[in-house]
Amino acid sequence: MNAPLWKTPAQRERERALKREAVLRAAARAFSEQGFHRTSLDDVAERLSVTKPTLYHYVRGKDEILFECVRIGLERLDSAAASAEARRSGGSGLDRLIVLWTEYAHIVTEDFGRCLILVGEDPLPAETRKDLRALKGKIDKRFRGLIEAGIADGSIRPCDPKLLAFAAAGALSWIARWHDPAGPLGVDSIADQTIRFFVDGIGAGAAG
Amino acid sequence: MNAPLWKTPAQRERERALKREAVLRAAARAFSEQGFHRTSLDDVAERLSVTKPTLYHYVRGKDEILFECVRIGLERLDSAAASAEARRSGGSGLDRLIVLWTEYAHIVTEDFGRCLILVGEDPLPAETRKDLRALKGKIDKRFRGLIEAGIADGSIRPCDPKLLAFAAAGALSWIARWHDPAGPLGVDSIADQTIRFFVDGIGAGAAG
Repeated sequence: MNAPLWKTPAQRERERALKREAVLRAAARAFSEQGFHRTSLDDVAERLSVTKPTLYHYVRGKDEILFECVRIGLERLDSAAASAEARRSGGSGLDRLIVLWTEYAHIVTEDFGRCLILVGEDPLPAETRKDLRALKGKIDKRFRGLIEAGIADGSIRPCDPKLLAFAAAGALSWIARWHDPAGPLGVDSIADQTIRFFVDGIGAGAAG
Repeated sequence: MNAPLWKTPAQRERERALKREAVLRAAARAFSEQGFHRTSLDDVAERLSVTKPTLYHYVRGKDEILFECVRIGLERLDSAAASAEARRSGGSGLDRLIVLWTEYAHIVTEDFGRCLILVGEDPLPAETRKDLRALKGKIDKRFRGLIEAGIADGSIRPCDPKLLAFAAAGALSWIARWHDPAGPLGVDSIADQTIRFFVDGIGAGAAG
């Protein structure tokens, strides 16, 4: 059977979504590598071997692209955190946090998460920044809730959940700043060792 | 005795240096609060209640200012690390690291260090970025050396010094992103708790 000459509306919709994601992903890479202000839509078009007018079928401009890149990065963190919350049978609070922190490291070293960490919402107008910051606040809350659950079930020693959430977010987000995807260290191994510093402690007196 | 009518060359030089630092500091604050691209020299002049032409007595333009702000932030980290290296009588490698990490937290939450973390060298032309990155590399080396010394003297459990240096730098630098100087938590307390997560571990199985 030959492929039909005309696509169905559903096929067209799906294709359009895939192309839009390809535009956003190419832009996310360009922003992370060159910086937001140094990246033009022409650069993005060139990375996709299309013309700039083609991009306008999918996005309105650079601000919308950055908003979407940051939003997608945040949505991924949020959905990872929501799954960790829902995973009641996934062991202690600490066990669930370790799984979530590992996912966090992967998300922030992938295209959209990397753009979230390296560029973020700062270049955007105040009004759009507000929406993204609200989403960040929601994610922070989920992390703190999981830490509180770990303290409550005795798997995490009593501490300020806000400070622990930020310390881990900082250590893991930093990977996006220094990790060379072409280098010898894989994200899994980096994430594992970084998380172990927190969980077991580095002092010779801490448990191993 | 009255103040002399004419200043000595040394007095004039000292006054000029103080004024230049005031310009850089006002700019560092503006860059951190508003972003580099959204800050104009007029904004900086306004913060100092002087005119823009006055600024040009001290700096050539925005790029030079950002370069200097980032360089000063890095120099402070470098000199803190150099002191920690020199402090041979300051206890174990881990003890010296704890002192250094505490200083690190203070440096990155002060004007120049904050600008280093929140803005950094990314907006600058490639050639100037290179100089600052060389300085960063030097600082990284000092941190790794101290961690190696701690592993050698048995105060730090064997680990990858590069990964530990980055994990701590990330956790502590992150403070510059979320800490509200007007809020209830002081930098000393935040630094202390953040460093304790690493040193003692958060797991209930870790030593307390």
